[in-house]
Amino acid sequence: MERNGEEMCDSSNCFPLQTMESAKLETVCIFGTGDFGRSLGLKLLQCGYSVVFGSRNPNSSNLIPKGAEILSHSEAAKKSAIIIIAIHREHYDFLTGLADVLKGKVLVDVSNNLKINQYPESNAEYLASLLPGCKVVKAFNTVSAWALQSGTLDASRQVFVCSDDAKAKEAVMEIARSLGLIPLDHGSLLAANEIENYPLQLFPMWRLPCYICAGFTVLIFLYCLVTEVFYPLATSKEDTSYLIVISIPNRVFPIVSLILLALVYLPGIIAAIIQLYKGTKYSRFPDWLDQWLLCRKQLGLVALAYAFLHAIYTLVMPIRYYVRWSVNSYLIAQIKSNNTYPLSNYYAWLSDSYVALGILGFFFYVLLGITSLPSVSNAVNWREFRFVQSKLGYLTLVLCTAHTLLYGGDRFIYGPFYRWYLPPAFVLSLIIPCAVLAMKFILIVPCLDQRITRIRQGWERKSKAANTDS
Amino acid sequence: MERNGEEMCDSSNCFPLQTMESAKLETVCIFGTGDFGRSLGLKLLQCGYSVVFGSRNPNSSNLIPKGAEILSHSEAAKKSAIIIIAIHREHYDFLTGLADVLKGKVLVDVSNNLKINQYPESNAEYLASLLPGCKVVKAFNTVSAWALQSGTLDASRQVFVCSDDAKAKEAVMEIARSLGLIPLDHGSLLAANEIENYPLQLFPMWRLPCYICAGFTVLIFLYCLVTEVFYPLATSKEDTSYLIVISIPNRVFPIVSLILLALVYLPGIIAAIIQLYKGTKYSRFPDWLDQWLLCRKQLGLVALAYAFLHAIYTLVMPIRYYVRWSVNSYLIAQIKSNNTYPLSNYYAWLSDSYVALGILGFFFYVLLGITSLPSVSNAVNWREFRFVQSKLGYLTLVLCTAHTLLYGGDRFIYGPFYRWYLPPAFVLSLIIPCAVLAMKFILIVPCLDQRITRIRQGWERKSKAANTDS
Amino acid sequence: MERNGEEMCDSSNCFPLQTMESAKLETVCIFGTGDFGRSLGLKLLQCGYSVVFGSRNPNSSNLIPKGAEILSHSEAAKKSAIIIIAIHREHYDFLTGLADVLKGKVLVDVSNNLKINQYPESNAEYLASLLPGCKVVKAFNTVSAWALQSGTLDASRQVFVCSDDAKAKEAVMEIARSLGLIPLDHGSLLAANEIENYPLQLFPMWRLPCYICAGFTVLIFLYCLVTEVFYPLATSKEDTSYLIVISIPNRVFPIVSLILLALVYLPGIIAAIIQLYKGTKYSRFPDWLDQWLLCRKQLGLVALAYAFLHAIYTLVMPIRYYVRWSVNSYLIAQIKSNNTYPLSNYYAWLSDSYVALGILGFFFYVLLGITSLPSVSNAVNWREFRFVQSKLGYLTLVLCTAHTLLYGGDRFIYGPFYRWYLPPAFVLSLIIPCAVLAMKFILIVPCLDQRITRIRQGWERKSKAANTDS
Repeated sequence: MERNGEEMCDSSNCFPLQTMESAKLETVCIFGTGDFGRSLGLKLLQCGYSVVFGSRNPNSSNLIPKGAEILSHSEAAKKSAIIIIAIHREHYDFLTGLADVLKGKVLVDVSNNLKINQYPESNAEYLASLLPGCKVVKAFNTVSAWALQSGTLDASRQVFVCSDDAKAKEAVMEIARSLGLIPLDHGSLLAANEIENYPLQLFPMWRLPCYICAGFTVLIFLYCLVTEVFYPLATSKEDTSYLIVISIPNRVFPIVSLILLALVYLPGIIAAIIQLYKGTKYSRFPDWLDQWLLCRKQLGLVALAYAFLHAIYTLVMPIRYYVRWSVNSYLIAQIKSNNTYPLSNYYAWLSDSYVALGILGFFFYVLLGITSLPSVSNAVNWREFRFVQSKLGYLTLVLCTAHTLLYGGDRFIYGPFYRWYLPPAFVLSLIIPCAVLAMKFILIVPCLDQRITRIRQGWERKSKAANTDS
Repeated sequence: MERNGEEMCDSSNCFPLQTMESAKLETVCIFGTGDFGRSLGLKLLQCGYSVVFGSRNPNSSNLIPKGAEILSHSEAAKKSAIIIIAIHREHYDFLTGLADVLKGKVLVDVSNNLKINQYPESNAEYLASLLPGCKVVKAFNTVSAWALQSGTLDASRQVFVCSDDAKAKEAVMEIARSLGLIPLDHGSLLAANEIENYPLQLFPMWRLPCYICAGFTVLIFLYCLVTEVFYPLATSKEDTSYLIVISIPNRVFPIVSLILLALVYLPGIIAAIIQLYKGTKYSRFPDWLDQWLLCRKQLGLVALAYAFLHAIYTLVMPIRYYVRWSVNSYLIAQIKSNNTYPLSNYYAWLSDSYVALGILGFFFYVLLGITSLPSVSNAVNWREFRFVQSKLGYLTLVLCTAHTLLYGGDRFIYGPFYRWYLPPAFVLSLIIPCAVLAMKFILIVPCLDQRITRIRQGWERKSKAANTDS
Repeated sequence: MERNGEEMCDSSNCFPLQTMESAKLETVCIFGTGDFGRSLGLKLLQCGYSVVFGSRNPNSSNLIPKGAEILSHSEAAKKSAIIIIAIHREHYDFLTGLADVLKGKVLVDVSNNLKINQYPESNAEYLASLLPGCKVVKAFNTVSAWALQSGTLDASRQVFVCSDDAKAKEAVMEIARSLGLIPLDHGSLLAANEIENYPLQLFPMWRLPCYICAGFTVLIFLYCLVTEVFYPLATSKEDTSYLIVISIPNRVFPIVSLILLALVYLPGIIAAIIQLYKGTKYSRFPDWLDQWLLCRKQLGLVALAYAFLHAIYTLVMPIRYYVRWSVNSYLIAQIKSNNTYPLSNYYAWLSDSYVALGILGFFFYVLLGITSLPSVSNAVNWREFRFVQSKLGYLTLVLCTAHTLLYGGDRFIYGPFYRWYLPPAFVLSLIIPCAVLAMKFILIVPCLDQRITRIRQGWERKSKAANTDS
């Protein structure tokens, strides 16, 4: 799964063979002898470029990779049309003193900040404002020094590049390409802000779904603990603490998974209701709804992870000591009492139906997960994506809700399951999914469905009234 | 799995911060105030562009997003070098009246049709023929208005762009990039036809495989229904209808999966036989074979889906009430009759072998599925792809056929399984796979294999004869 | 998963419609009438280009696709600005005779070699050195003639293109695009060497991991064979050969999987120790360590494949005849002796814990596998990738090691398991993982961890000393 086209360049760029041909390639100047500057310099040397470092202290050259030259800033700048600025933003102002030497040159801003949106404008735009005569290109900030050096560029071989000068941008993209990286054109310097924020992010879209999931997990776990461990302990001094390991998690996973799956489809329904109520699609949704709509994919994937765990936890049942012991005890009791129960057609239907619904639900769950892989969702068009995510998604929700309903079977009304007047946990899990399905069912009633479709195609209730006025 | 580089631009493009910097970005003109025109206009405004709408009725401006100007068509066109034509093809002819104003401008055709190949030529080519003095660019038609507006551009962030004018194309790609979309250069305006057909497709390559699969599923299901439900009902009044839920599907899935897997490899064998017979590879295959060859991947993936369902349906067996009841009844009967059977080495070997072959077959099945993911198949070269799909593919077919043969074991000749003189369903499933494997076995006999290899490298029987004539 | 944007062009490129519009497209000349030349010529014709072949023997035109012209080399070259050189490298020298005609033209080198690094310089560079007046472009060598013709371009639709001339490169990329292929710019002609090696590779990064895996598999299998089949045969004449099919593989898979997972993290630890010892990150690692570090991903994926097999082999346990027979025998014996064992809380905890740890370990294993899909790892930044691969990776190793330890339970000291004084196989599997975890535990002690972090940020022990000297 690994050797994509780009990597091959990377591995062979280190061949000494190509260093001999360096005459063909231009000279690149690097300001700053910090770790990133040196790593980039070494990589450039390995790929056949001549490298000259600019430093305040050009005599302490022992840190510089072999084969590179080290000069004062202004002398180094004269040697090359492209200057990589590998210094911190706080020291940019000294560059104004070199404005004459740098005039017309391409400055590559590789800097990163410590926090997201640390400064009002991006480092690259700040650099451009300091040196209006230069062509500033933002690049290389998403690549790690460690990765450049070790050659293990598994992640983030991508280099986001942006600049207001097309030629300067192309020259920097060519350098990135010859280092075995994948340059991606992000347009004008306006994009520098996002490019600088990118490497600081740690799964920002996953945070909310994970918090929601963790919250529900804790709640349902405690609920099950009370009804299945504390209740028998309090009423009959029975120690069922071993249920904590598999039995209770295998109750928590499906419940939370079903709730999260319903939460994937709830915001769409709320949005439709708001649009119906306001009679237009041009008014903004409240912020919480916008954020909810944007993290539906992650919510769905977390739900899929829990469904996967539920599937395996269920399949290992016959292997577990506790389950085998229960089955054997039941059988021994049956033999001793000399009772044999005939096959109940009703229970055969019920048990098989609930298992089959669960399997089919899981199957479509996995299908939804596969289509949300970036390479797969890029390969389908909008119509196909809507079909899968909306039609198949609701089918999954219906199957999983039916699975839970049938699992309940006649336990809903069967007394002994209500311990301390608490309903079994799976009953709680059905509230949101059933509400979502009921609302969806109302919304696809023809008269409402037509109105929503018209609203989404741009029709407005108010504007019509306004039109008749004018 | 979500935040790819492009998305980050999208989310921050909505920051008010950047609207202030609109001075930097050019003015874009949009003809047409329909839903798509307005959505695109709003998005352009949010990303810092100035937007001017051209309309027949410039006074009814209440629909226009705030911040945009609305003028007559000719006045609006004068304000911008790039004009987005967000009107239907049927109204294109009025543009000929504006030919003078539009001369030399970039016209972006964003239109879509209602049916595939609705008109003899693409809309963009029609536009170019109406206005020969303009640079027509086809773009944005794959993006949905709803997605542009809601910001949830999960699918189809890709914008296919084509034009006969390189500079005009680059300018439009730059706009797409700054809207957080991914422009893909599709070359000259000849590609407009395909770009216009693209958003109208709904899994065109999946249709044939799905029909084939559905056909086999229904047939095998009815066959199993007759032999396993109707037969006991008719002969011994036994109600085994509960088998419909899991037991019969778990017979249908593996049978259809095996047949489909064999159908993946059958067309390749037919093609080889045709090439051997005709003695050349330069004559076209019949159409049905071409189509079959092209949908092999989808056939294989449908087969994998069924194999996956078969795997889970099999693994849940010990959990099902019916299975547990059968096992218990058997055990109780054994205890009552005081019979204990010793471990049969033969059955231990047979049962474990058939299970192990099934697991290994499923494992390679999954491996084939993973390598057909777009990002994985892009990362391997032709030699590697052939190795996986051909060598591993046949290995999978051999393993799955052997799995079915061993499952049969000695049931092939064992009478009671032939109900109403019908063989058990799995026997039927073996016909095509065994035929495919037998033919493949013949084709890899050295003398035939060499001839096919030579034919595929361009050697021709006829042409040789012709050569000796000349 | 199939219809990506590029394919649609491919399928419709064959429409006769577009052949009519050939007037729009330029003439392409092809030198050489071998299989690849003819296939490419046919495809070009189908896509609307005029094609003229150059041949030593222009009269034997019966092999040429219909619609193409065939002329002598010099006459053919005059007809087109782009000449595709579809001849073997050994015959390139005859082109020097045509230097005058070819001057200033674009020569497309499509050649491949038989072995990796067969010649000191790449074919394209050799061609450029022979004809210094021409613009040489390397392209199309990764596409197979068979695939071009049959239209089944599932794999390797990608065309790597490189050239020292930007305009020539763009022209060739445009041709590739209109053939429905995806051109990828690989920069200057320096990249030709890698582009020529690419189609000759057969999973080069997978070889070492597969050998390591095969070695361990054979060793552990033989070890289990001795202790579980030969031992009972020798001591009690018991035939347990049926264990070879599932029981022993299901012992080999988890053991090798755990060892390989530990081997993924071992080289990182060795690297850290070397860096600590040398006090710098700027000295090269030994070659074996470099290679080991580079194939960690493949090692991990092989380990995941074995873990997957272990999971399924375990889940089928209750279905196997041998296991059912054992369970039944145990139960019958229990009933006959009239012994009933009460539920042991200790064993319920132990059994469930070891199963739950295994499931969670497998879950994170799968998560690691998904994030190593190219499209997923491209969508995360460096920080996120490190988080997943390092944090989640070690979590997986801890969970799987704990799973094995608990599986052992009190068997470690329980005598009968030591057959012929050999410890049970799973004990062996724990050596490397425990060593890796112990070393990692030492390395994250604050004082060591800080030093490694500083070293990896570029700090050097030696250089500091040197600095104080200067």
